[in-house]
Amino acid sequence: MDRKPREDHFLGIDVGNTKLAFAITGDNELTFHEKRVVRTEPELGVEQALDKILTNSQELLETHRDQVKGIGVAFGGFVNATRSIALASPNFPGWRNVPLVNLIQDLAPGIPIKMDNDANVAGVGEATYGKAQGYEQAVYLTVSTGVGGAVLFNGQPLAGSQGLAAEFGHMIVKPDGPRCTCGSQGCLEALASGTSIARIARERALSRANLMLELAGRPEKITARTVSEAARRGDGLAKAILEEVAFYLGIGLANVISAFDPDIVVMGGGVMNSADLLLPGAIQVVKKHLSARGAIVPPIEASSIHDDVALWGAIALAHIAARVVSRS
Amino acid sequence: MDRKPREDHFLGIDVGNTKLAFAITGDNELTFHEKRVVRTEPELGVEQALDKILTNSQELLETHRDQVKGIGVAFGGFVNATRSIALASPNFPGWRNVPLVNLIQDLAPGIPIKMDNDANVAGVGEATYGKAQGYEQAVYLTVSTGVGGAVLFNGQPLAGSQGLAAEFGHMIVKPDGPRCTCGSQGCLEALASGTSIARIARERALSRANLMLELAGRPEKITARTVSEAARRGDGLAKAILEEVAFYLGIGLANVISAFDPDIVVMGGGVMNSADLLLPGAIQVVKKHLSARGAIVPPIEASSIHDDVALWGAIALAHIAARVVSRS
Repeated sequence: MDRKPREDHFLGIDVGNTKLAFAITGDNELTFHEKRVVRTEPELGVEQALDKILTNSQELLETHRDQVKGIGVAFGGFVNATRSIALASPNFPGWRNVPLVNLIQDLAPGIPIKMDNDANVAGVGEATYGKAQGYEQAVYLTVSTGVGGAVLFNGQPLAGSQGLAAEFGHMIVKPDGPRCTCGSQGCLEALASGTSIARIARERALSRANLMLELAGRPEKITARTVSEAARRGDGLAKAILEEVAFYLGIGLANVISAFDPDIVVMGGGVMNSADLLLPGAIQVVKKHLSARGAIVPPIEASSIHDDVALWGAIALAHIAARVVSRS
Repeated sequence: MDRKPREDHFLGIDVGNTKLAFAITGDNELTFHEKRVVRTEPELGVEQALDKILTNSQELLETHRDQVKGIGVAFGGFVNATRSIALASPNFPGWRNVPLVNLIQDLAPGIPIKMDNDANVAGVGEATYGKAQGYEQAVYLTVSTGVGGAVLFNGQPLAGSQGLAAEFGHMIVKPDGPRCTCGSQGCLEALASGTSIARIARERALSRANLMLELAGRPEKITARTVSEAARRGDGLAKAILEEVAFYLGIGLANVISAFDPDIVVMGGGVMNSADLLLPGAIQVVKKHLSARGAIVPPIEASSIHDDVALWGAIALAHIAARVVSRS
């Protein structure tokens, strides 16, 4: 018998392209009771990934039978406007229109479920447990493989008409800029994502002596991390690349702030492990632009919950799902 | 005696840099009972403009004594976050921190008053009486002397932390672009406002034969209207200029849509009298950009209430003010 049979539990699920993560929390929502991580292996197809998602969810639901009061799901791709179907993921070929909420609902009849794209869910995590806590209007900008975002009004993400609000990675910040993975051109993602940092560095690595090439061995082995490491060690080319990236990040931030005028901007994603190298330059650009018309620059801060932010967000979403039901 | 002594009335006030407009509506809110327009004459100073605003308001309030249930004010400049102080107007030197709501409140004790900047108020007008009616999430973009905007959630404008949300004119769409009136560089307003269209045309008018120069007489007499007229008559240079303007308008629209994913975008402002010349090109750019990632382009339409949109918006705001009070 459980010693605390009446404790409420919440299930968070993070469906990413690299890993699938699951966590159960109890009354103390800041500690995971149980956490599982398995590899997604998109190359093995949609069926096997779905099977892993559902099997692990079911096992966790059974272990905590009758205690789970809400389920939150973060999906690393596009979700539809009613947040029930995981439409597609740029890095998971073959994933198309999966009714993920219904499939999980079948395992947990009557338990409220909420799903959203991972950037929105991470934003919810940031607004519930991170630096955006307590702010009425917060913007979350994530810079990793791609660039994504969320706008939180009192902790709830702005969805938009098609569920495509806060697609900050696809704001055009340089109309004649490089091609973007989305097929368009000059998007913030094409200029300031981890992938773009690596691409720019590879293109320039052979042009003059630099530490990046030394660290990576070959141009094609240079990653965004290599660029940061080289910059930290004083490499001129690496520093110049990050300065350029910071500039476009600043333009993107200035545009987001001009659109929303938020109380705070929180920056997350793997590239923000190098926030010390990128944020000061970006904030300089924002200050120069906004102060020209007398607007105050909101705090722009690096996230403090680097790890598991989408999983934490999924737990927060599970709480929201449960609250919505208990209110109605 | 009034034949309809119990009819509710609403007062709308539009404080612009060129004109001050006042209107009273009754139960049939689509017709003005009375409308007054006087010149602002900013060159005569703040005192005289304020005196005109307050005298005209007082006279209209007295004529409709005990019937006015709400007052709405559109201000052609920045307002503070609580929407009580008209901070400053770029084209009204000397106007600083005027407690406009309090001053009007003194004339109308107990009557609810709401004020906002004119772009937001025009957006409210568009959402109440215009093409944005009935949409949950609408964006209003106004292109006239400058470029401004509003985001409407169920007809209510998004304010932002400092009251500076939806400053779409100051989104950077060309980082190395021309100087903007705000002091920064590459803003949408510096590339696609009426003032910018005129500036570009003046710069190029002497470079080759064109109808604009013929129509205006001298380069410095060319206005945005001259460019449209010349383009309509087939002038190549004028058409090329508008094509360029449409391109940047498209970039701006694409960025706004990526940020908000609205149900509809309504375009207003004087320059939209040439919507037929500008919108098709701009929409083309938006389509190309959004369709690359499979997003649906929302309807982008020219406003149908060109005249008095801010005054209509002020009336709508007066209704909102009255409703908020009657609910609480």
